[in-house]
Amino acid sequence: MIFRYPNGKTYQPTEHTKHTKQQSISYSNRGMTLEEDLNETNKFYLENKTAVIHKKPTPVQIVNVDYPRRSAAVIKEAYFKQSSTTDYNGVYRGKYIDFEAKETKNKTSFPLNNFHDHQIEHMESVLDQGGISFVILSAFDDYYFLGAEHLLTFWNRQNDGGRKSITLKELQEFAYTIPLGYQARIDYLKIIDKLYF
Amino acid sequence: MIFRYPNGKTYQPTEHTKHTKQQSISYSNRGMTLEEDLNETNKFYLENKTAVIHKKPTPVQIVNVDYPRRSAAVIKEAYFKQSSTTDYNGVYRGKYIDFEAKETKNKTSFPLNNFHDHQIEHMESVLDQGGISFVILSAFDDYYFLGAEHLLTFWNRQNDGGRKSITLKELQEFAYTIPLGYQARIDYLKIIDKLYF
Repeated sequence: MIFRYPNGKTYQPTEHTKHTKQQSISYSNRGMTLEEDLNETNKFYLENKTAVIHKKPTPVQIVNVDYPRRSAAVIKEAYFKQSSTTDYNGVYRGKYIDFEAKETKNKTSFPLNNFHDHQIEHMESVLDQGGISFVILSAFDDYYFLGAEHLLTFWNRQNDGGRKSITLKELQEFAYTIPLGYQARIDYLKIIDKLYF
Repeated sequence: MIFRYPNGKTYQPTEHTKHTKQQSISYSNRGMTLEEDLNETNKFYLENKTAVIHKKPTPVQIVNVDYPRRSAAVIKEAYFKQSSTTDYNGVYRGKYIDFEAKETKNKTSFPLNNFHDHQIEHMESVLDQGGISFVILSAFDDYYFLGAEHLLTFWNRQNDGGRKSITLKELQEFAYTIPLGYQARIDYLKIIDKLYF
């Protein structure tokens, strides 16, 4: 079942929600989502003191909370809010790391409607402050690391009436393929090492 | 009404929740909470391109979502989760900024039970990665900036059987009083300028 935000964007359940739903289903051999792979990667980075990078909680507007005596508060009514930032941030070797992760099943191009204005503005602000800003794109059976400065170029082209997506060829030119590992599944810090250190 | 997490800690409603509740009440001359003051400060920093620092959303475990046709998804059952990080982070002049804000009404000391193990571990990890980690304490009619390295000292003293709080005198010795402004209400970047640049 797909949940949608008021703006029509789909809600990606967090790992925790997913576990709740899957408790009656077999855990073996389940497909990992991009978010789960990134959570595993970040957990590995954290445990090995490589970096401290976390996914931010899903922003929720809480309207009504029930507070039964002697037990935990229950949120009875709440709504998904659109985030004003990207989903992931943290610190690596003293540098500020900030990124968003998106996937497409599209075979020929990466649609820009995976992003919204607030996120793009946030990436610009992070670049202005000297932070490392990028997106991880799951597309065409690969993971791509695309610097925010390039995403901004494609975004501006769209705003100027140009195409509403990034082609596979453009990704191959401007993005880096992220090496996959067993523990650091989507080992994006390898790209950061190459580009910034 | 005070909501509590399963561990007994009180839930601090976000600005948004608060607005919802206050819509029928007069907005004039209301007292600002520490969180509201920090949100205003960070908004001012953001708008003036001084820094990009945000409060993370309240972590919520979503259990049940209702998805009415033609309208927004409604979260019908959810629970507050304990965060594994601090509440605020972002980037300032290329550096990673990470902090937690807490207040006490206590007149003589700042109780350490305002923090929990996960937050303290997170602060240690941030320091290890070369990030700027601190706490903003509202206490004794002042705002204090206390570097995480000092908080860790007090925390370890407690774990070694010592006192469970930081005295006013200790704060005066190890913390910095944060200047208050009109727009940057709790102007903590002034302290960071002094200490790190």
